[in-house]
Amino acid sequence: MRTILEKVFLEGRNFLSELESYQFFKTLGLDVPHHELIPDSVWLRGRLGSIAKEYPSRVVLKIASPDIHHKTEIGGVAIVENKPDVISGAFDAITTRARAAMPKARIDGVLLMEFVEIEHELLVSLLDDPTFGHVLSVGKGGTLTEIFKDIAMRPAPMAREKIEEMLKSLKTYPTLKGYRGAKGMDLTKAAEAISKIATLARVDGRSPLGRFEIAELEINPFVITPSGRVLPIDSILRFREAREIPLIYLSPIATSIHELFHPKSIAVVGASDAVDKMGGSILKSLIDSRATKVFPVNPKRDELMGLKAYHSVCNIPEPVDLAVLAVPANQTLAVIKECAKMKARTAIIISGGFGETGEEGKKVEAQMLEAARNAGMRLVGPNCMGVYFEPTKFSTFFLSPEKTEIPRREVNNFTVLSQSGAISVQLVELIRNVGIRAIVSYGNMIDISVSDLMAYFNEDEGTDVIGLYIEGLPNGQRFLNAARRTTKPTLILKGGKSHAGSAATVSHTGAIAGDYDIASAMFEAAGLVEARTLEEFADFAKAFAFLKGRVPAGRRVAVISNAGGLGVLAADATEGTCLQMAAYESATVESIGGETRDYMHISNPTDLGPGVSDEGFVKAAAHVLDDANVDSLVVIPGIQPRAMNAEAVVDGIIKLYARYQKPMVVSITPTENRRGLIDRLESARIAHYDTPERAVKALAAYVGYHTTRQGK
Amino acid sequence: MRTILEKVFLEGRNFLSELESYQFFKTLGLDVPHHELIPDSVWLRGRLGSIAKEYPSRVVLKIASPDIHHKTEIGGVAIVENKPDVISGAFDAITTRARAAMPKARIDGVLLMEFVEIEHELLVSLLDDPTFGHVLSVGKGGTLTEIFKDIAMRPAPMAREKIEEMLKSLKTYPTLKGYRGAKGMDLTKAAEAISKIATLARVDGRSPLGRFEIAELEINPFVITPSGRVLPIDSILRFREAREIPLIYLSPIATSIHELFHPKSIAVVGASDAVDKMGGSILKSLIDSRATKVFPVNPKRDELMGLKAYHSVCNIPEPVDLAVLAVPANQTLAVIKECAKMKARTAIIISGGFGETGEEGKKVEAQMLEAARNAGMRLVGPNCMGVYFEPTKFSTFFLSPEKTEIPRREVNNFTVLSQSGAISVQLVELIRNVGIRAIVSYGNMIDISVSDLMAYFNEDEGTDVIGLYIEGLPNGQRFLNAARRTTKPTLILKGGKSHAGSAATVSHTGAIAGDYDIASAMFEAAGLVEARTLEEFADFAKAFAFLKGRVPAGRRVAVISNAGGLGVLAADATEGTCLQMAAYESATVESIGGETRDYMHISNPTDLGPGVSDEGFVKAAAHVLDDANVDSLVVIPGIQPRAMNAEAVVDGIIKLYARYQKPMVVSITPTENRRGLIDRLESARIAHYDTPERAVKALAAYVGYHTTRQGK
Repeated sequence: MRTILEKVFLEGRNFLSELESYQFFKTLGLDVPHHELIPDSVWLRGRLGSIAKEYPSRVVLKIASPDIHHKTEIGGVAIVENKPDVISGAFDAITTRARAAMPKARIDGVLLMEFVEIEHELLVSLLDDPTFGHVLSVGKGGTLTEIFKDIAMRPAPMAREKIEEMLKSLKTYPTLKGYRGAKGMDLTKAAEAISKIATLARVDGRSPLGRFEIAELEINPFVITPSGRVLPIDSILRFREAREIPLIYLSPIATSIHELFHPKSIAVVGASDAVDKMGGSILKSLIDSRATKVFPVNPKRDELMGLKAYHSVCNIPEPVDLAVLAVPANQTLAVIKECAKMKARTAIIISGGFGETGEEGKKVEAQMLEAARNAGMRLVGPNCMGVYFEPTKFSTFFLSPEKTEIPRREVNNFTVLSQSGAISVQLVELIRNVGIRAIVSYGNMIDISVSDLMAYFNEDEGTDVIGLYIEGLPNGQRFLNAARRTTKPTLILKGGKSHAGSAATVSHTGAIAGDYDIASAMFEAAGLVEARTLEEFADFAKAFAFLKGRVPAGRRVAVISNAGGLGVLAADATEGTCLQMAAYESATVESIGGETRDYMHISNPTDLGPGVSDEGFVKAAAHVLDDANVDSLVVIPGIQPRAMNAEAVVDGIIKLYARYQKPMVVSITPTENRRGLIDRLESARIAHYDTPERAVKALAAYVGYHTTRQGK
Repeated sequence: MRTILEKVFLEGRNFLSELESYQFFKTLGLDVPHHELIPDSVWLRGRLGSIAKEYPSRVVLKIASPDIHHKTEIGGVAIVENKPDVISGAFDAITTRARAAMPKARIDGVLLMEFVEIEHELLVSLLDDPTFGHVLSVGKGGTLTEIFKDIAMRPAPMAREKIEEMLKSLKTYPTLKGYRGAKGMDLTKAAEAISKIATLARVDGRSPLGRFEIAELEINPFVITPSGRVLPIDSILRFREAREIPLIYLSPIATSIHELFHPKSIAVVGASDAVDKMGGSILKSLIDSRATKVFPVNPKRDELMGLKAYHSVCNIPEPVDLAVLAVPANQTLAVIKECAKMKARTAIIISGGFGETGEEGKKVEAQMLEAARNAGMRLVGPNCMGVYFEPTKFSTFFLSPEKTEIPRREVNNFTVLSQSGAISVQLVELIRNVGIRAIVSYGNMIDISVSDLMAYFNEDEGTDVIGLYIEGLPNGQRFLNAARRTTKPTLILKGGKSHAGSAATVSHTGAIAGDYDIASAMFEAAGLVEARTLEEFADFAKAFAFLKGRVPAGRRVAVISNAGGLGVLAADATEGTCLQMAAYESATVESIGGETRDYMHISNPTDLGPGVSDEGFVKAAAHVLDDANVDSLVVIPGIQPRAMNAEAVVDGIIKLYARYQKPMVVSITPTENRRGLIDRLESARIAHYDTPERAVKALAAYVGYHTTRQGK
């Protein structure tokens, strides 16, 4: 294959002609249509006898020229019967027309090939995504695939089995396996062929094509013939010289990140006593947290908030573990250099005004990084809010006085890693009863990246669940590696969901899948749980943090309420999720019936009616939890008519939750004066949601994560 | 057409043969493939010469028999060249094979027809939905339509222009109008043909087919040929005797509903002094509201809650405008009869245990209705919570003490009509700052229906926005009529979203569109705004109630925040909605730049950065509102770092809202101690949402409603 690319490259092209692509695919081990190049009519005459024998009853002739792209339009293609005189005639007609239409084109002759009968067609492509590297896409061929965007995408390379799974995940899969009597394709054979395309992808940053790499390869269609052959027909193959792979800075990452959360001394550079300024706000946060020794740095002050202040980092008489920089962007580089000189271990650059503003800012970032690396110092940011770490009570977050503190709970097991500080804070507010282990607002991540942090917190004993907010990723492949290695449930919200593709592609795949679609597919492949909105992110976080350790046996869910409508909405919300409505054992139906009025018809969703008492409600819920057909439960003690005491119901639910290990979520109508009750539920680590649908969606995400992992 | 159906009906069939369907379609004015029935070979011999002239080069022969359904399987179909000997041979072969395969079948001969070339295919159907009556569906033909469920549905009959709109609304429309060089179809001609099918639908309950009506008609495919003919090819047509149309009770609806909300006296039947019982709870609500004279009725009590009690409705010495029944189901009919005897004007039956439990309950419902109608009394319920009406302070809702009262606001312009009482209460809780005009929990609606109530509140001066929750509809066509006549924004949430089709259909359309899909399409066609979840319902209600009167000039939206991430999420949320991100005028960019740090790059979404002051933030928002390219605004003063005073921002936003008429919504990070601030915003009738995405979705629903109405 390399030889073919080498030759084409020397000719000054970065794409293959049709003939070259057949040669390329053949070398790759793929079956290709029987074909040959006929350079001229004399040659053809000598071959005609053999062609009649070697080719099927119909053949295709196409003008062969690297300069002619729209062959059909100039009459450069013909499908004819395999008869010597017919072929001769077509050959002459095609070459004559091509010469007339494009007199200056280099014409290499005519490509003769067997006519291929189509039973199924696939679209297969290997794109080099700027973030995630080589991505393999498969879909059914044809225009409707483009309209309905029905393609599966995964990071390449990948094994045949995974490609079969990709084909099976298509909505159009029924038509591939044979629909309404039509013949299905041999999936394994098709996947086998596609897996050869996948071997062209980079592995660990190295291209299998040596000095070249695939920029874009699309086969459309990849044809399955009635006799079961799998043949690439039309294709685009663009390649380029392999890019240099950026060196990854190989410091002992875990150690330096550890020190970031356990500094013995902190310098706040740009400190002031004005709490409406960042430096003052951060200084106050750090002093209030009493976590560590603090050195304010301000060139004009000798004292700040009761502490001795220093005019420069260089004046601090003790070692500085962590420097927090809240100085204007144009002073930051100088301060970083001073910190490096003083052998600070880590620095958090709060200020914005760097890479996010353009090329000039990126240059400064590179200089800061160089200064830090030379001194073995690690950096967080710039353009971030820094770090909150519950065990050491340590926070660099600059928040207004109305913003309450990040609350500490009995269990603090959720860690937030967010490119945006604001989103991390809002997330924490939306799940106030979930204990937070750590927040890192990592901003432009010129050094310590979300991948490093994810790897670190995967090892952190106190963290059970990780939540990620990202907008851009400097190195998507490294991120996916870290994500795949994560053993803890990891949620992700992606900001910037534009579906416009940014990669410059000429293929259909590019038109089908935008950046966000690709990212979303990559996250799923890496086992991350994706939330689509900030609210979903919060809802999922609460479910995962609270339900931790309760592994569902399956996907069968029960819904129990005292208000039919709310139960109906909950059942509706299971549609399109992994959850299935459980069918109760008959004993359960009988036992529930005993707790309610006799006219209530017991099914799932279970409506106990407005007349049910608190005691009856809780007993009925226990019957449902006892049912072997029920794997998880949604409890909706709705609006609570006077027959039901809300406190008694909540206490009953808390007891059930302690008694049963099945995952359970709750939705109570959130009236003003029930906030205390909801807090009581959540203090018992029971996830509450303001509407039934949100409860179901969060439970579904949790159950889906576990059942997928178990291969159920 | 009637003659054809009459003949088939007399033969004991309810479906047409292929030949009959061509005759039927021809009578309807459609073009059909050229065809004729050849009864036997002698006849054929006499026609062969003419066939060669009258038919194109290829013809199709099909065995004609009402008893043979799978013609292809028994070799009963042939496509042959239009040559006398070939046709003769095919005729003999087909009849021989058919006789051999099914010796007892009645064979009418062979259907000869022209072979039709296919350029485009459509799926067209007219189904008789049990709720909504005749529904016309159109889609692209082929299996993928079934997989992607890409069909448009509207209530039939309908004009050609509307059918063109339906075709244009398909996702596959690009392939119909000509995609990537393929030839498009003549849309008007296709729609013209489809509109003839639509004329078969009932109008005002009357079938155009006299004593018959279409049960199910599906043409698949409806073919467009290369020469532009539009031909039905394969079809299913099932018909039946027209059903009797239930008489609609024609009382002066508006008057009796008016009295329901303005009763001068109320009897509470089943009253008690136990507030944990429905009767006691309702009695207490009514006494507390002090709205009207109350007569408790309880056979065992002479006094209740300080009021004289009566042993029976019959003992009440004054006229009763409204009776509220909270007695067990088995006593309800007797009480209704007593109320009828006492000439009560209206009754609300709170109790459940009727139609929702089965046939027995439905019988009792019919008896109650009869008793009421004979006395000219109107009924609400059963199985409901009754009525809340703000102007008369009148409520029959039975709620627990923890459930706070339905709050009254300065403006109370939102009316809730809900089949489920619990959902109406939860909805009101979710939008506590929205003033509620009325709530009607209408339950099984054996008499007064959601359609009556919708019509009534459309005329009610105090109601600006109506919210509907429905599960089932007894008369979908009447509901759609009422919905189409509504001039006020009307939101709808449908409970019971199962996609399984309940109509017994044999066609593909039935497999594609479930009950919910049909209902959803009908709601859209009637101009209702559908919410998909209870939260969306609440969010939309808030936007419509607060934004009332602010008509957007277009779909261009601006997003302004002091936290990039939150603005990004808001912009992401516009994707898939009607909203488009506005492009600012250059003057706006300059003015905003003046309010922020110089490194912030000003675009839309606009990030003012964490350093912006409250004053700067509000000024920047004003610049955006001044921009002629901006039609509406999402304001996100995010987490508020110390540089920004939250109260000052809120006050500033309130002033902007008064000054500008452009629709605006707000999202502030909802911290515990900001609830007061959020209430302050909402007291100024500014819709606030806990996350940016919810703010955008609600605004989009509002803008979509208005721009669609304006035809923008």
